[in-house]
Amino acid sequence: MAVDVEANTTWKMHFPILINFLMSIVAYFLTARLIPGIKEKFIKANLFGIDMSKTTSDKVPESLGVVTGCAFLITTFLFIPVPFGSSLIQGEYPHEQLVELLAALLSICCMLLLGFADDVLDLRWRHKLLLPTIASLPLLMVYYVNFNATTIVVPKPFRDLFGFSVDIGIFYYVYMGMLAVFCTNAINILAGVNGLETGQSVVIAVSIVVFNIVELSGPLWKAHQFSLYFMLPYTATTLALLKHNWYPSRVFVGDTFCYFSGMTFAVVGILGHFSKTILLFFIPQVFNFLYSAPQLFRFIPCPRHRLPKFNSKIDRLEISTTVFKYSDLNVLGKIVIKLFKLFKLIKWQEKDGVVVTNNLTLINLVLLYFGPLHEAKLVSILIGIQVVFTGVAFAIRYPLASVFYDL
Amino acid sequence: MAVDVEANTTWKMHFPILINFLMSIVAYFLTARLIPGIKEKFIKANLFGIDMSKTTSDKVPESLGVVTGCAFLITTFLFIPVPFGSSLIQGEYPHEQLVELLAALLSICCMLLLGFADDVLDLRWRHKLLLPTIASLPLLMVYYVNFNATTIVVPKPFRDLFGFSVDIGIFYYVYMGMLAVFCTNAINILAGVNGLETGQSVVIAVSIVVFNIVELSGPLWKAHQFSLYFMLPYTATTLALLKHNWYPSRVFVGDTFCYFSGMTFAVVGILGHFSKTILLFFIPQVFNFLYSAPQLFRFIPCPRHRLPKFNSKIDRLEISTTVFKYSDLNVLGKIVIKLFKLFKLIKWQEKDGVVVTNNLTLINLVLLYFGPLHEAKLVSILIGIQVVFTGVAFAIRYPLASVFYDL
Repeated sequence: MAVDVEANTTWKMHFPILINFLMSIVAYFLTARLIPGIKEKFIKANLFGIDMSKTTSDKVPESLGVVTGCAFLITTFLFIPVPFGSSLIQGEYPHEQLVELLAALLSICCMLLLGFADDVLDLRWRHKLLLPTIASLPLLMVYYVNFNATTIVVPKPFRDLFGFSVDIGIFYYVYMGMLAVFCTNAINILAGVNGLETGQSVVIAVSIVVFNIVELSGPLWKAHQFSLYFMLPYTATTLALLKHNWYPSRVFVGDTFCYFSGMTFAVVGILGHFSKTILLFFIPQVFNFLYSAPQLFRFIPCPRHRLPKFNSKIDRLEISTTVFKYSDLNVLGKIVIKLFKLFKLIKWQEKDGVVVTNNLTLINLVLLYFGPLHEAKLVSILIGIQVVFTGVAFAIRYPLASVFYDL
Repeated sequence: MAVDVEANTTWKMHFPILINFLMSIVAYFLTARLIPGIKEKFIKANLFGIDMSKTTSDKVPESLGVVTGCAFLITTFLFIPVPFGSSLIQGEYPHEQLVELLAALLSICCMLLLGFADDVLDLRWRHKLLLPTIASLPLLMVYYVNFNATTIVVPKPFRDLFGFSVDIGIFYYVYMGMLAVFCTNAINILAGVNGLETGQSVVIAVSIVVFNIVELSGPLWKAHQFSLYFMLPYTATTLALLKHNWYPSRVFVGDTFCYFSGMTFAVVGILGHFSKTILLFFIPQVFNFLYSAPQLFRFIPCPRHRLPKFNSKIDRLEISTTVFKYSDLNVLGKIVIKLFKLFKLIKWQEKDGVVVTNNLTLINLVLLYFGPLHEAKLVSILIGIQVVFTGVAFAIRYPLASVFYDL
C-alpha cells in the first residue's frame, strides 16, 4: 500500500511535466510547419543572407530565431495555468514559483526583443554586451526580492581557510549577470557553419534535460522540474528550427536565436539553482571563447570575418587565415602565440617576419586537425565534440564533484 | 500628533511614486536624446516611410515606438526593487503585487516584440487581432491564478432582476481579452496625421494619471498606485517620442507604438481594477471605431488608405473619398448610410447612381466640419477633442455614476 501511495504522489508531482512534454511535441510540429510558410516575409523585409559556403547565391532568410522564440513563448504562456491551477485546487498558493516563472519569461522575452532589434537595426558591438545585462535585470531583481541567497558552499580543500560556506554578497549578482552575458555571446561566436548554432543548442538543451531528470529524484526536485518547464518547449522549437537550418540551410537563425537561447540557458541555470553546473555543458564554448580571446581583444589582428574559407572546386571548407608582422605583436600577443604553438593549437607559417596563421576559432582548429572538410561533415564533427563534452561534464559533475563537496 | 503620524504614513505609502516620478523625468531626457541618434539605423534597415502630406519626399524613419518601448521597460525594470525592496525590509512579502507587476511587464514586452515583428515583417490583417490575444495571455493567466474574481456589481436599476452582483465567469475573461484587442487597435486606426498617435496616447495616459491620483485617497489606493508605476514612465517616454513625432514629424512611431501603448493601457485597466472606467478615456477612439466599422467590415467599399488628401498648392489637408455604385451596397450598408445622412455625419454626392462620399474616419469628419486644414491645425483639433472627452469621461465617472452605483 505504501508503495502505491508513493507512486501516486510521484505521478501527481510530475504530471505537469507530462503535459509540458505533450505541448512541446505539438509546438515542434506547428513550428516546423510555420517556418517555410513565413520565411518569404523575412526576405521581403530585407532580412536575408547569402550563404558564403555555397556555389549558388540564393537569398537565405535570416533571423528565423524570432519565430521559434515566439513559438516557445506561446507554448509556455499556455502552460502557466497547468502547474499553478492544480496547486490552487489543492489550496496552496505557489506564489514564489509563479514569480520566478514570470521573471524568467520576462527576461527571455526581453532578450528576444533586443536580439531581433539587433538583427534588424544592426546595433553596435558594445550593445551586444549591454543588451543581455538589461534583459537579465528582471531575473536578478526577482532573485533579490525572492531569495537574496548569495552564500556559496566552499569546496572541501579550502574549508580550513574560509569555513563551510561564504556569503559573497554582491559578487553573486555580478556572477549571475556575467553568466547571462557569457551564455548569450558564447553561442554567437561559435557560429557560421550551417546548423551549428541550432545543433550545439539542442545538445546543450538535451544535456540539461537529462541532468534535470536525474535530479528529479533528489531533494531539489522542484527547481529541476521548473527547469524542465522551459527546456522541453525550448528543445522542441529549436529542433523544428534545426530541421530547416541543417545543411544545406534553408533558413538562418540570426543573433536573435543566439541571444534568446543563451538567455534561456542562463535563466534555468540561475533559477534552477545550478548556475555552476550549467557551465559544464558549455565546455566547447568556453574553450572557443578562450581560444578566440586573443583576436577578440586584438592582441592578434582580427579580420572582419573569421569563417572558414569555401573552396568551391572541391566543395570543401578550408582554414581561414590572418596575416600580420610578428614584430607588430605586443608582449601579450607574443606570449599567447608561444603557448598556442607549444600545445600545437595553431597553424604557423613565417617568412621574412610576416606571419600567416589560422583565425583562432574552434571551427578552424577542427579543420587544422582533420584537413579540408565538406560542410555537413564539419558541422557533424563539431556537434560530435559537443556531445563528447557533455559526457565529460557528467563525469565531472557526478564522480569528481564528490571529491570537493559532500553530495 | 495623530496628524503627524498620518502624514508620515501617507508619505511612506507614496514614496515609491515619487521615486518613479523622478526616474520618469530622467527617462524622458534620455529617450528624447536617444531618438535622433538612433533614427538613421532605422532608415538603413529599410524601416522608413515617405510623408504623404508634405511637398518633400524625405525618408522618415518608421517604428520608433520600439525605442520608447524599450526605454519604458528599462525604467520599470530598474524600478521593481523600489516598492518591493522596502516592503521586504518591513518584513512583509508582497508576492501578489510582484506577480502582477511581472505579468503586466511580460504582456507589454511581448506586445512590443510582436508589434515590432509586425512592422518589420508586415504580417497579415488577421494577425493584428491574434497578436494582442497572445500577448494578453500571461496577464489573463495571472488574473486567473491570482484573483479569478469575475463578479460584477449590477447597476441599481437592474438589481431587482439580477441581484446586487453577478458572477459572469468566463465572459469576464472574454471581456478582458477583447479590451486588449480593442485598445491595441483603437489607436492604430485613429492615425495617419503627424503626432496624432503619440498625442492622443499622451492625453489618455495623463487622464489615467489624474484618475489614479484622485483615487489614491480611496480604498483601492494600492491598485491605483500600481497603475501609476506604469503610467508615469509611459507618459514620460511617450512625451519624448511626441517631441520628435509632432508636426513636422522627424520620426514615425509604427504599429509597434500603437500595440505597445494599447497593451499598456489594457494592462493598467485590468490589474488596476478599472477596466470599465478606462474605456471612458477612449470615447473618441470608440466613436472612430464605430464610425469606421462599415468600411472595416466592408459594408461600404474601403480603399487601401483612408488618410486625408494633401493639397500641396494650399498646404492643406482635404477629405479623402471613396466612390461606389449605390445599388452595389447590401441592406446593412444602405441602413448605415441612411443613419449617417440623418445625423449629418457624411459628405454625400450622388450622380447617375454613382456615389462619392468621405472615408469614414474621425479625421475626415473633422475636415468635413472645419473645411481643409493645415496639418498642424488638424492634429491640434483632434487632440483638443480628445481633451474635451476626457472632461466628459470624468463627468460620467463621478457625478453620473452615483445614479447607477453606490459610490
